[in-house]
Amino acid sequence: MDVDVADRLDHAPADALARLLGDRFTTRVGMREQYGRGESYPHLHLPDAVAFPMTTQEVSEIARICSAHGIAMVPSGAGTSLEGHIAAPHGGVAINLSKMDRVLEVHDGDLDGIVEAGVTREALNHELRDRGLFFPIDPGANATLGGMAATRASGTNAVRYGTMATNILGLTVVQPDGTIIHTGGRARKSAAGYDLTRLYVGSEGTLGIITQVRLRLYGIPETIAAATCVFDDLAGAVATVTELVQLGVPVARVEFLDDVQVRACNAWSHLDLPEKPHLFLEFHGSPTATAEQADMAAMLARGNGGSDFQWTSSTEERNRLWKARHNAYFAAVALKPGAGVWTSDVCVPVSHLSDAVLAVRQDIDANGLTAPIVGHVGDGNFHVLFAIDPDDAGERERAEQVYERMIDRAISVGGSCTGEHGIGLMKRHHLVHEHGEGAVATMRAIKQVLDPRNLMNPGKIFL
Amino acid sequence: MDVDVADRLDHAPADALARLLGDRFTTRVGMREQYGRGESYPHLHLPDAVAFPMTTQEVSEIARICSAHGIAMVPSGAGTSLEGHIAAPHGGVAINLSKMDRVLEVHDGDLDGIVEAGVTREALNHELRDRGLFFPIDPGANATLGGMAATRASGTNAVRYGTMATNILGLTVVQPDGTIIHTGGRARKSAAGYDLTRLYVGSEGTLGIITQVRLRLYGIPETIAAATCVFDDLAGAVATVTELVQLGVPVARVEFLDDVQVRACNAWSHLDLPEKPHLFLEFHGSPTATAEQADMAAMLARGNGGSDFQWTSSTEERNRLWKARHNAYFAAVALKPGAGVWTSDVCVPVSHLSDAVLAVRQDIDANGLTAPIVGHVGDGNFHVLFAIDPDDAGERERAEQVYERMIDRAISVGGSCTGEHGIGLMKRHHLVHEHGEGAVATMRAIKQVLDPRNLMNPGKIFL
Repeated sequence: MDVDVADRLDHAPADALARLLGDRFTTRVGMREQYGRGESYPHLHLPDAVAFPMTTQEVSEIARICSAHGIAMVPSGAGTSLEGHIAAPHGGVAINLSKMDRVLEVHDGDLDGIVEAGVTREALNHELRDRGLFFPIDPGANATLGGMAATRASGTNAVRYGTMATNILGLTVVQPDGTIIHTGGRARKSAAGYDLTRLYVGSEGTLGIITQVRLRLYGIPETIAAATCVFDDLAGAVATVTELVQLGVPVARVEFLDDVQVRACNAWSHLDLPEKPHLFLEFHGSPTATAEQADMAAMLARGNGGSDFQWTSSTEERNRLWKARHNAYFAAVALKPGAGVWTSDVCVPVSHLSDAVLAVRQDIDANGLTAPIVGHVGDGNFHVLFAIDPDDAGERERAEQVYERMIDRAISVGGSCTGEHGIGLMKRHHLVHEHGEGAVATMRAIKQVLDPRNLMNPGKIFL
Repeated sequence: MDVDVADRLDHAPADALARLLGDRFTTRVGMREQYGRGESYPHLHLPDAVAFPMTTQEVSEIARICSAHGIAMVPSGAGTSLEGHIAAPHGGVAINLSKMDRVLEVHDGDLDGIVEAGVTREALNHELRDRGLFFPIDPGANATLGGMAATRASGTNAVRYGTMATNILGLTVVQPDGTIIHTGGRARKSAAGYDLTRLYVGSEGTLGIITQVRLRLYGIPETIAAATCVFDDLAGAVATVTELVQLGVPVARVEFLDDVQVRACNAWSHLDLPEKPHLFLEFHGSPTATAEQADMAAMLARGNGGSDFQWTSSTEERNRLWKARHNAYFAAVALKPGAGVWTSDVCVPVSHLSDAVLAVRQDIDANGLTAPIVGHVGDGNFHVLFAIDPDDAGERERAEQVYERMIDRAISVGGSCTGEHGIGLMKRHHLVHEHGEGAVATMRAIKQVLDPRNLMNPGKIFL
């Protein structure tokens, strides 16, 4: 262990953690800074130390020590969270699970498996590929499965495959006092008692530390077909998707890029797409089924003013067609050299999506901001990528006002202040606005009873 | 209000409830007996009175009165629960929501809607039909949506459409003290705070009273095709289904009837099916897609020893093919004249399904019992319908021993003591066996904090 014990961490717990973990426990400032922020979140909140457990038992021991000394615990994985989940505003010990990276079980016949929380999405899919299996939830970043569970992540495949909430069969959780519990099981469904799995999924580390995740797995589709289509306006794109979903066409992914994002992608990826709203679609199934789905999408798109419908089932062509979408984040970053990208998401009923996106676009433009919009249009979930000059406080402030209005509008039509990023530190005041005092009081009561001393990721979700 | 106030209900709360509800509050023994048992559950536990609220506000007022006087509240709907959920072992007021039967909102474009808790599954689908929509969860009985939510019901369509847990966007819940909260919202997905919706779904009325349910809806499929197939043994049937699911074929329903159930159906419905294990399948989609799915199923079935594969997309033929499955319950009841049918379910990983069903079949036969087996084979969920002579205590006892062993075997392979019926009164001691002391202590802590005086459906889920 390093010797520069942080101000707020006493020697007794620091020594106990060092005895437990050896050089997998550190108070070095450089390491603490790595776990003080996360992506996109602007403020630094240093933990007092960082611990790297290798097993659930070690996490339990860490919790026992922290609990005995009243020390905050801040779990983390790949650090790709966007809402400051891994920052440590109350100090304490950052518990990073990235060394718990083993795929423990895969059951081909049952399409399930168990991973340690630190396994990344890409590592899991790499390991599954040879078995003809995959795990479909894809939030973009190469996040860990534990982090994806903790934030209730979803992403581009959610229209067809659901979110982390629908694809987790069970969890191993370490509670604040070190108790290890197992939720769920190997049954595909169960009506036995309270659904603790879904309670911990999306709890953002505030109730316990997820150390293992039991997942549903899927067979790799026989054919993956991709399509793109250009629209004069967003309304036509949304109508196309609404009709597809209503007809029960099992679209796997359907992504929207607005004209500003397309312009950014053209510049970044050297493309010459028409600088208008685009839909990017993906279909999974047999060759016949995917061809039929693509035909149906083309027909509906034409009926809604779509043009230049292209589709393919070759992998190479698919990658070419989807290139703009895959690089959307980097293109946004490059849009304004020197800027930092601050990204946020809301989710609205699909019938309100056009209005919601148009309103925020007008607001962005009226405030002289640079901010492309991309969306998981099948869910009504969209992201604004604010490119902000870090030295321009006024720009940040204007962006924050646009952001507040975007969230208010989403909630006013029955939507959510976050479809998939979580509450973290940034959206705590929106939680009550969205759910009402009564529901949030119920959430607080649960937090209070399961973490009575507020040691688990304190300061997150609740103000 | 009726005058024969029950022993355990004081005049003060009875008068207050009568003032609130008029003749929608009763203490008549005949009415109390209707809410003392539910289906299949053998013992009678009378509530002291029955209340029939018309609005969420009235439910809140009832809760306020009951809470003020420390009176137990036992919510109910159609009374089709199988595990004694609506029985009142602690007396109190049965709160029956069947008069709250309005479909409040349907949003065609967003594929969602809100129903009051007392709307039945069939009434909802009747109302949706003209809009080209349907709600897929089908537990067999014409249950209410509130009851289906409270027990985390699923049924035959779950392979493709999921369970109540995946098809509810939000709830209105009356808490024990009368506080009304709203969970979820109209967004298709949200990462905003704890998932209270999934906490109340499956809580069996022990945390609060569900008064409104916000549902996902679906477009009626263009084509519904049905198929049946005969197998020499269950293993071939299970292998067929496993391969179908692995290949990503989106089977909508896949049901298994064992040879005893087929014999019962032949007698009841005057059929001449081979008295061997059968699979009943249903496919939803375009004419091309359903035909392709059926062809694939036929091919896989043949490879696994299946024969006599029949399929059709005509409604009339479909009803003929599926007749045996639709009437399975009545056929089981008729199997042994004078007997009562006691039905229970377990859920196991699909790879253990053959062994689990064969073991219970041998156990049934070795004990001289009459009990057909039907299953939602795509989920590993199966039901045993014990036909028991009510005057033969020994038979009941032998059935209970078979039942205990079936559950123990399910849990020993990572399965669940109930896939879709719930815990109720019958399976309380299995809850700890399945989830462990730690997880059940966590459930109890949540119960304690949300219902500190144990007024909500006391005696259910927990021993």
